[in-house]
Formats: sequence, structure tokens, C-alpha cells
Amino acid sequence: MKKLPILAITAGDPAGSGPEITAKAFTHHDIYRICRPLVIGDPAVMEQAIGFTGLERKVKVRGVNKVSEASFEPGVMDVYDMHLIADPAEAGLGTINPTAGEAAFQYVVKAIDLAVKKEVDGTITNAISKEAINMAGHHYSGHTEIYADYTKTKKYCMMLAHEDFRVTHVSTHVSLREACDRCKKERILDVIEMSHQVCRDLGIENPRVAVAGLNPHCGEHGMFGTEEIQEIAPAIEEAKKKGIHAIGPCPPDTVFSQAIGGWYDIVVCQFHDQGHIPTKVQGFVYNRELQRWNAVAGINITLGLPIIRVSVDHGTAFDHAGKGDANELSLLNSIEYGAKMADSRRKKQEGGGGDGQAPDHS
Amino acid sequence: MKKLPILAITAGDPAGSGPEITAKAFTHHDIYRICRPLVIGDPAVMEQAIGFTGLERKVKVRGVNKVSEASFEPGVMDVYDMHLIADPAEAGLGTINPTAGEAAFQYVVKAIDLAVKKEVDGTITNAISKEAINMAGHHYSGHTEIYADYTKTKKYCMMLAHEDFRVTHVSTHVSLREACDRCKKERILDVIEMSHQVCRDLGIENPRVAVAGLNPHCGEHGMFGTEEIQEIAPAIEEAKKKGIHAIGPCPPDTVFSQAIGGWYDIVVCQFHDQGHIPTKVQGFVYNRELQRWNAVAGINITLGLPIIRVSVDHGTAFDHAGKGDANELSLLNSIEYGAKMADSRRKKQEGGGGDGQAPDHS
Repeated sequence: MKKLPILAITAGDPAGSGPEITAKAFTHHDIYRICRPLVIGDPAVMEQAIGFTGLERKVKVRGVNKVSEASFEPGVMDVYDMHLIADPAEAGLGTINPTAGEAAFQYVVKAIDLAVKKEVDGTITNAISKEAINMAGHHYSGHTEIYADYTKTKKYCMMLAHEDFRVTHVSTHVSLREACDRCKKERILDVIEMSHQVCRDLGIENPRVAVAGLNPHCGEHGMFGTEEIQEIAPAIEEAKKKGIHAIGPCPPDTVFSQAIGGWYDIVVCQFHDQGHIPTKVQGFVYNRELQRWNAVAGINITLGLPIIRVSVDHGTAFDHAGKGDANELSLLNSIEYGAKMADSRRKKQEGGGGDGQAPDHS
Repeated sequence: MKKLPILAITAGDPAGSGPEITAKAFTHHDIYRICRPLVIGDPAVMEQAIGFTGLERKVKVRGVNKVSEASFEPGVMDVYDMHLIADPAEAGLGTINPTAGEAAFQYVVKAIDLAVKKEVDGTITNAISKEAINMAGHHYSGHTEIYADYTKTKKYCMMLAHEDFRVTHVSTHVSLREACDRCKKERILDVIEMSHQVCRDLGIENPRVAVAGLNPHCGEHGMFGTEEIQEIAPAIEEAKKKGIHAIGPCPPDTVFSQAIGGWYDIVVCQFHDQGHIPTKVQGFVYNRELQRWNAVAGINITLGLPIIRVSVDHGTAFDHAGKGDANELSLLNSIEYGAKMADSRRKKQEGGGGDGQAPDHS
């Protein structure tokens, strides 16, 4: 029997709701059918989180100092002990503080390190606070930039997914004016290629890659906006020459309804909100009667990295920390996606066999 | 008993699927509980459409030459006879042509005229083809511009709605770069006021008007984009001074999930696709198994006009014309919204009584 991929799951900011979400996720024993999960964090913090969620009888924490010490048994949460926070009180629950920021940052760096050294097959990240890691002296705007820096990656892009709906972004955290400037053929082609590749990694044979326009109605033949003619269509043509099934430019207001309907495997979006709006409209479902979110689903993947990184699609939720009411769906989605990608990469490395013995990580 | 509002329903481009969609809508006798529907078109074209949809036994056409001649009986479609197309063959089914364009344009002009003269209480429009009306010598980019011109309206904006989810737009058919330029305090304030007013017209006492930002994460305190600080927030402040419950600037990627969850009554959007994407993701539902659209729901309303105009939220669907398979849901939604707005306006004109006798239209 093949060995399941080992996934390093960072605990996230110890002052936020990441540890609790992780505790809840570990009660879903189904995750052990698809991966061998290993939390990167501090055992004391994880124990506290299990207390908040009232899951003491369902999950026990077991600190390990090496990946090979982990037992991966359902009901036991293996925690790679970072020895950063011995007393949970230090974490400053519910606050943005440098102690928690430092720990959150080191969890991420360790996860990257283990993946680069191939001790784990993929990494899953809980939310960190940009302010907290900056307070701790680490000047990054988020996970994506940390991963890019520590793996020396130049070409990367952000993907969001909710079930089989997937979007990638030509630009992300820049002004809308700057996003218009970044709508350039070369970058669009890179994102089309990364989008094609991730679908292949997910086991899709000949992925249908839709490419959204930038302007309303794709500019209606240049009447309002020419980026479709000058940048997007030429990028699509180049991609086709490389054998990619690229489609578009597609009108931005209908391409997502079509993608949800199964017409495409992935949609290349020209700016942050073009992709974020349809994903969150689908994944975030508020219950009007109970006045709380039924689901906070959806995941965030960084494409272009030499290692696998899948993340929850929400923030640290400091206001929920300690209440035990944060929703674990996005983390479960992330684990599932990460396991699928790790499995597919391994098959590829083994030459497409897929049922051979995995490299032994111990 | 109060009299129901008379709604003039334009047949749309006679070469498109508007007439068939209308025929199907008239088999839903529920519409007679909320309005007195009158089609503006050509009886021969409507009869042909009833034939395509196989509804001869359910709906009969009755041409009338004055509003007062209409009988408004379920099972009988009153058609205000425009005497433009006597033989349906002239309409050039499924093609973009000037004969059909001319007829479609005249239907709209007649509907506006009847509403301005208060012979009808509101107008509902089926889709027209911009190309066809331009071929016929009428140089407008769509319904909205025809309505604005014929009613001499300067301040207006486009609203989309799907059930109780509503969005309005600061700009529409301009490039994304131009949309950034149009994100100006004065215009935003106008749109906030129109958004507040339409909710009041729909019977909402103190509407919660969310205002979306322009940039991702609302620019994160000016880090990427300053329109939120310089234009949007000041417009919101002005609106609050006028007693409007305006909220924001709200991050564009989460405000729609919240609005769908019932947090707001309407969302002011800064550009076309910001509002169109979440509306269509909700209203357009594709059936993967049957490979067709289950629903094409949602409506388009022009705000700021002296008369009521509600429209279907889709195009002419020339490729469906004559097949009888086009979906009537958006037209039914439009009729429902139009009836509600007409009812509320009448109550207001009567001084808020709401159960008094409506003006006699005959």
C-alpha cells in the first residue's frame, strides 16, 4: 500500500483562531485517509486550543522533535515542537503582539524548510497577522512573499479555489489603477501556464483555462478599453501555441457563472477582486436566522513554488480567538487540496505509475 | 378593492427570443395577481412566438389600439398593436436586421410615452440588440440611454437585483481605467441617494446602503489606492448627514457575501463588473447534467428616471430564437419588481394610505 503524503500544517498566529480551527480539523478522522498530518507549533498552545473547543476527549497532543517521531494516529495530534511558547498566556490571546507574531513566522519558516528538504510532502498554512509579524521584525506582506523569498521564487501567482471552481490572479495587492498597468501579455501568459500546470497537478488531463477580460464586456471591440486586444488575446494565442487549451478573452461578468457550471477548469483573472468576489460569494455562506457564518470555505494556493503551499482563505479572526466558535471548513478544504496535489506530484515523480511505493520519509 | 398597476411590457427584438419569453411568462397566471400586463408589440409576432413555444391552448393574443381596450384576463395576452410587422417573416428570426431593430426601438419609445402620460404605471423591457437599433438609424448604446434621452434625465444609474440582493453602479460601460477616474465623491453621493430611494420605493423603511471600495482591501489605509480615503469615505459622510444609513467603504471581496447574508439592503459598486459578477454568479445557474441553464434570473433597473423601468438581465439570445427553449425567469422577476415599485409609488402619491382607490386608467 502506498504511503500517504505528510502535510505540515502551521498552527497560525497563536493569538488568533488558527490553533482552535486546527483542533477541530483533527476531529475529522477522514483526513487520515488522505494524508499524514503534522502540526508545526507549540504543544502548550495546541492543548489550550483543544480546551477552548471542548475536544479534550477527542484529541490528545503529542509533541515531537523530528518528523520521524510522529505517529499519525487518529485521535493524536502530532505537534512538531518549536519550543517558542511554553506557557500559552505568553501568546496574548486575541491581541496583535510580537511574541505571537514571532512564533507564527517561525512556524511558517520551519514548514518551508521541511518541505524544501523533502521531509514533508506539502505545507498547509493557517492565518497569520501581517501586523504581528512586522512587529516581530519580519517585513513581509503575507505568506506568499515569505514563501517566494525563502524558496527564491520569482514567478508566482495566487490561486483561490472552492470545490472545483478555481481562479488565478494576474495581480493581487495593488491599486486598481496599478492592476490595469500590470495587465501585460508576458505576465498573463505566465499565469495561464501556472494555471494549466496546477490543474494538471490536480489530475486534470487537458485543462480548460478560461481567461477573463479586464474591461466590462471585454471592452466591446475596443470601444471601452483595449487591453483585451493588445495584451490578453495575444497571451491566449501564445498559450495555444504551447498546447494549452486557453479560452477567451471571456466577458468577466458571465465567465464565473459558466465556470461554476463546469465549462472551465480554471479562470485566469486580471485583478484581485475579479477573482475574489465570485469565490467568496460561493464559499462564504451566512445564516440569516442564526446570525453566523454557516461556512467559510475556499482555499488559497501559491502557484509557481517548488513546494506545495495551500492555505485557509480567511484571516486570523482575533475576535473569535478563545471562543471555540471558528469554522474549520476552509482548513479541511486546504488539507484535502494539499493531499491531492502532493499525491499527484509524487505520481509524476515516479513516472506516472501512481501505485508504487512512496519514498520513505522516516 | 385597489386596482393593480398596469405594466407595459415591450416585446423586445422581434428576431430574438423576447416574444417567446413573453409568451411563456403569460402562462404564469400569478402575474395577474400583482399587475395588469400589456405587451407593446405586434400581434402577429406574438402569435408566432406562442406557436414556437407550443402554448396555443394556454394563451390567445388580442390586439388593442388603446390601453383602455385591454381586458387583462388570464389566458389572453393583450398586445398594444404597433402595426409595424404584419407578417412575422419580415422580422428575420435569429438575425440582426434593421426591420426588427426599428420595431424593437419603437416598442420602447411607445412604452416610455405611455408611462410619461401616466396611461401605464410602469414599463418592463425585453432585450433589444444594440446593433439592430443602430442599423435602423437609432444611435443609442442601450435601453438606459433611450430612457434617459426621452425622459430628459441627467442623473441616473444602473441597478441589478436578484431576489433581495441589490447592487447599483457608479459607472458602467466605460473602460476599467475610466471607471477609476469616475470614482468621484459627487457621483458616488448621487448613486448612494438613488440607492436609498429605490429601497424606500420597495417598502424598506431605513435602508442599509453599503458602499464598496474601489481597490482590493479598500486600499489598506492608502497603501494601494487612495480613492477610498479621498472620494468614497467623504461621500458616505455626506450621505449620513442627509440621514441615509450609509455603511463603508466596505472591502469589495466580502461585502457581497455579507449582502447575500442579509447584512445590507443594497450595495453601491464602483464599476460595472464589481456589481455584475456577484449578481450573475447568483442568478445564472447552469445545470451540468442537462447542459443548459436552469435559471437566468436577475433584473436590471434604471434608477433616477421619472418613470419605472425594469428589464430582463440577459440579451436577445438570437441563437435561441424560434426554438422555444429560452428561460422566462428573469422576465417574471422583472414583472414582480416593477409591480412592487409601481404599487409603492402609488401609495406614496396617495399620501401613504396604500389602500385607497388607484387612479382610473380607462
